[in-house]
Amino acid sequence: MNRFVKFLIVIMVLFSGCISTNDNSVSEIKSEQVSDVLYQVSTINALMESIYDGFVPVDELVTHGDFGIGTFDKLDGEMVVLDGICYQVKADGVAYRVENVTTPFATVTSFENDETYYLDNMNISEFESYFESKFPSKNMVYAVKLTGNFSKMKTRSVPSQEKPYEKLVDVVKNQSVFEFENVSGTVVGFWVPEFMSGLNVPLYHLHFITDDRLAGGHILDFEIDSVEASFDTTPEFYMVLPTSGEFYSMEFSDNLENDLKAVEKQ
Amino acid sequence: MNRFVKFLIVIMVLFSGCISTNDNSVSEIKSEQVSDVLYQVSTINALMESIYDGFVPVDELVTHGDFGIGTFDKLDGEMVVLDGICYQVKADGVAYRVENVTTPFATVTSFENDETYYLDNMNISEFESYFESKFPSKNMVYAVKLTGNFSKMKTRSVPSQEKPYEKLVDVVKNQSVFEFENVSGTVVGFWVPEFMSGLNVPLYHLHFITDDRLAGGHILDFEIDSVEASFDTTPEFYMVLPTSGEFYSMEFSDNLENDLKAVEKQ
Repeated sequence: MNRFVKFLIVIMVLFSGCISTNDNSVSEIKSEQVSDVLYQVSTINALMESIYDGFVPVDELVTHGDFGIGTFDKLDGEMVVLDGICYQVKADGVAYRVENVTTPFATVTSFENDETYYLDNMNISEFESYFESKFPSKNMVYAVKLTGNFSKMKTRSVPSQEKPYEKLVDVVKNQSVFEFENVSGTVVGFWVPEFMSGLNVPLYHLHFITDDRLAGGHILDFEIDSVEASFDTTPEFYMVLPTSGEFYSMEFSDNLENDLKAVEKQ
Repeated sequence: MNRFVKFLIVIMVLFSGCISTNDNSVSEIKSEQVSDVLYQVSTINALMESIYDGFVPVDELVTHGDFGIGTFDKLDGEMVVLDGICYQVKADGVAYRVENVTTPFATVTSFENDETYYLDNMNISEFESYFESKFPSKNMVYAVKLTGNFSKMKTRSVPSQEKPYEKLVDVVKNQSVFEFENVSGTVVGFWVPEFMSGLNVPLYHLHFITDDRLAGGHILDFEIDSVEASFDTTPEFYMVLPTSGEFYSMEFSDNLENDLKAVEKQ
């Protein structure tokens, strides 16, 4: 994987100037209206069942929140929305800033710190247990944001799919994995209670974007060097289901729970 | 139960004049804004776990939809919202029109006919199978409305609870049951896909209110004489969770699915 990190560094140097020119132009979020709402496109189970056709444009998505995660039409990469800007981390490991694409599955909110902690030298399991213990309730949704330096960060992305689509549990067998060392960036994601499984990923679902917004992906593992970690309690939930296409005729499998564990942590 | 029906008839005659005077004053729904959204207060599992403290006022609830069902603070009866007016069917079997009360669990939408069928001589199982076969997808929420005459209607309501609250599965052991014959009225309710279980009652959940708006309840059984049956496809879902109180510290039981079946159809 070190070869890939070197490749990324080259890409970062080449493109950092032109990508960072107009970072603040997309976001015009009225945060007071959407701050407590998790806005969700479709369901995680639909994504598991290979419903990959996007139906909500990203420029509409970001009017519902400046912070979030998801994927893109044809499952083309991992989404990170941060400060109202949508990034597409493709299977080549590069984060592209995008507006004119659609999403088949995403969750966003307007992030406002409720509580902030300064954490050093923790692996992902230690972080997850510690941070969960700070949540005021296990029956609530939290937006989770970590900004700082990671001694290790392991992410993945998936390539654009062609019809007939394979199931997500099979697609991730060919995922691209990226490993970073001593990388600065932001973890963007959510913690969702168990009673919402079927709709969203239960417990943590975290994506990553580097400080220079040039790389990232769906997080498989990390080790914290030193970060500022915040959460935003989000008691309202607004879900929009597809009103046409394959979602309408889909028959859900019984075994999605086990498949989801394989997809999230493989 | 015939004594009770006679009692209801007396009540209807006594109160029908004064209750029907200002039927249209509550509803000021902007249906174009909320027509495709199922607005939900809390979750059915929270209600199962005896979270009965109301936290959303009914006069706020009806701004999110003119049609729906639910219950009231302290589990005090069965809710029917029809034409923007909220009725509370208490354990005495009488439907009271209410505004200044709160709800711990309710679902409403702005009802607009998508498809309408004229049905005669069906029992509840025949109706449920037939109507489900007309839905364009099994992965969608439908508001369900039947207006007409029922040769038989069996409903229940539950009495106001005192703390420490008993679980719903125990409360319904002392429910009041009402049986009507040849009654005209409206069935108000929803059909919700299996993947939303935990949040709402899977498949059908139906309440009833008589034409004179004086009686009704949670439906246990019916036989259709002749009705107009409509459904409204509802692809958006907006849920508001409690942000304080016992919901925050509640630990969900594992056996809620079986308990729910007992609660719904007992």
